[in-house]
Amino acid sequence: MTFSFNITHKDPQSRARIGRLTTPHGAIDTPNFIFCGTKASVKGLSPLQLREAGTDIILSNTYHLMLSPGPDLIAEMGGLHKFMNWDGPLFTDSGGFQIFSLGHGSVADEIKGRRTTNRPKTFLKISEEGAEFRSYLDGKKFFLTPESSIQIQRKLGADLIVQLDECTPFHADKEYTARSMEMSMRWGDRSLAEHERHDDGKQAMYGIVQGGVYPELRKISCEYTRDRDFFSTAIGGSLGSNKEQMYEVVAMCSEHIHQSRPVHLLGIGSFIDIFTNVRQGIDTFDCVSPTRTARHGWALVKGAPKERVNLRNAQFMKDPTPVDETCGCYTCRNHSKSYIHHLFRVGETLGMQLLSIHNVFTMNRLMREVRAAIAGGMLDAVQKEWVV
Amino acid sequence: MTFSFNITHKDPQSRARIGRLTTPHGAIDTPNFIFCGTKASVKGLSPLQLREAGTDIILSNTYHLMLSPGPDLIAEMGGLHKFMNWDGPLFTDSGGFQIFSLGHGSVADEIKGRRTTNRPKTFLKISEEGAEFRSYLDGKKFFLTPESSIQIQRKLGADLIVQLDECTPFHADKEYTARSMEMSMRWGDRSLAEHERHDDGKQAMYGIVQGGVYPELRKISCEYTRDRDFFSTAIGGSLGSNKEQMYEVVAMCSEHIHQSRPVHLLGIGSFIDIFTNVRQGIDTFDCVSPTRTARHGWALVKGAPKERVNLRNAQFMKDPTPVDETCGCYTCRNHSKSYIHHLFRVGETLGMQLLSIHNVFTMNRLMREVRAAIAGGMLDAVQKEWVV
Repeated sequence: MTFSFNITHKDPQSRARIGRLTTPHGAIDTPNFIFCGTKASVKGLSPLQLREAGTDIILSNTYHLMLSPGPDLIAEMGGLHKFMNWDGPLFTDSGGFQIFSLGHGSVADEIKGRRTTNRPKTFLKISEEGAEFRSYLDGKKFFLTPESSIQIQRKLGADLIVQLDECTPFHADKEYTARSMEMSMRWGDRSLAEHERHDDGKQAMYGIVQGGVYPELRKISCEYTRDRDFFSTAIGGSLGSNKEQMYEVVAMCSEHIHQSRPVHLLGIGSFIDIFTNVRQGIDTFDCVSPTRTARHGWALVKGAPKERVNLRNAQFMKDPTPVDETCGCYTCRNHSKSYIHHLFRVGETLGMQLLSIHNVFTMNRLMREVRAAIAGGMLDAVQKEWVV
Repeated sequence: MTFSFNITHKDPQSRARIGRLTTPHGAIDTPNFIFCGTKASVKGLSPLQLREAGTDIILSNTYHLMLSPGPDLIAEMGGLHKFMNWDGPLFTDSGGFQIFSLGHGSVADEIKGRRTTNRPKTFLKISEEGAEFRSYLDGKKFFLTPESSIQIQRKLGADLIVQLDECTPFHADKEYTARSMEMSMRWGDRSLAEHERHDDGKQAMYGIVQGGVYPELRKISCEYTRDRDFFSTAIGGSLGSNKEQMYEVVAMCSEHIHQSRPVHLLGIGSFIDIFTNVRQGIDTFDCVSPTRTARHGWALVKGAPKERVNLRNAQFMKDPTPVDETCGCYTCRNHSKSYIHHLFRVGETLGMQLLSIHNVFTMNRLMREVRAAIAGGMLDAVQKEWVV
């Protein structure tokens, strides 16, 4: 079997666990962090730089790749691993999240409890069959179904793939959320059927837990995914409007979810969120924030108030020390805060690159230390080192 | 002696020579190419990536650094080598070129024979004492003199520094060019005097040959620099409006210039220009083009028509081959034209980075092959491999 998940250690104090997730492109230790290579590139970093920063696994977005360069071209080029030259485990999502979030011009924000934005609406309509939307690139109409999402993901060829679901916004009421969840279940069955129709052992699929902020719905959705032949489970949908609600939603899922399958938490990645959710049995995380915030001058710093500092701040103008004295990344071994401040000030993109390297390294370091902490029964102590 | 230049081989067919230029931060073999790290960063590349691409020496612009972050801050941070973490030979210019070129909003274009642009004029006035200009960042007035240019370059701390000169535009007539050249000579003496006043063996200075497209003036200027105690000579000023005129200007200088000092040709860097000017005894070149064109999708390719190809071109959409099959750079070893085309198409900056790596590697490879060609008496044959 090319895919497996072995839990090698369980924390007696919580649901935290150490595991080994094996794919045809290698194994990763969990808990681990999956970096976003949205359009087949983790922004600004080469695969070599990602590896040097300790990266084990990356994710790419089906929605973006479907629009450009298209799944057929990637398949013709030998699949996504070869296309982007990433030889490790690779994850693609279903395309659903971006259809709904970019399409409504507001859902991504609402799911995360932020104010709405004014993006043009490209989402056209949703039905039992699937979701219709326009390309934000050229206005061309697309129709994504559970089957076509799996077909596209098969062409892309990532190791870990995801069923199509509807992403309900935060403001959805319980009735809408329940109906949407039920359709996502039917879409899950269709996704599984399409996957099994062509299964050659090269891909394994996540079922998605929906149900918004409603415990009864989350329980039903957990039981649904648990009882189906998914390889793994992802917690998706609206996680509430703040951290506390998000932790509650994950807690609602943790006791009902399939206990021996890998569990992914979609779109979450701050230090405190990782410590908190690891204790609920989350095995993998993904979030654009390490590289997105780097491009805006933010450096993740172990033990810093608010987890990060902005190198654009004038206080760093003459600071000859590295971003994080305790960090072993290329940036911290070679460059000062003063230099990085200068690069941002004069608009040199090397600043973004150096902070992206640092933030990726820091997330990978965090996950290594989290695993060691679980193994050593030191999760509380290690959390205090990272989150003050 | 911390600085030296040893010519180890002379081509019997031309003025081409192989040399070794030694500085306090190491030695480089010549002919060689100096990459532009305008604002203390070769755009988009880390020092590690520069080294991995075979880079020996880089240049930074006094004008830009003077405005931000300022020479005092760089001195306080331990000098430019430490500030930008480049431990090899480093070159700074005098600041003059950008004052006149950015300031007139047209001179850089006119020097290179291009049509004029509409940039705001920041150059205020020039006198025997020096040049007054406004910062393009905040409008603050600056006054640059030969003495202050050298003082600033001393604070920056590059190994190789340059006297202040006036850059005359291409349209300047002979009389203006002659008067300007004479003032640049007096500025050369003042630059030298200021340098010698504080000389601690850590920096060596280039005199600049001016004189526009006029053979008599170029001869006078060559003799001036030859007879002064400059370590090395740079050919500057207007090099005409096309390649042929540029080659003529360099030829005018080559017989009158100090023969045993290193000779730098300012702002020139195409394959054909390098082969042609190496035969006139040019030892080093600098040009922004390898990295600037990379950011616009252009890849330098040995033996390609016009020396380069644009990866944005749709013909590369499904091309699984590397940019240059004969190239050993990181990009060509790991990525296809198809992938790079995709990155540019969807606006991922990794595309710029990958082509910058390739172009820097290619220029360094060119210079290695040029040196080997001079040593082996194969300059014509090697030129035919590079320039078709």
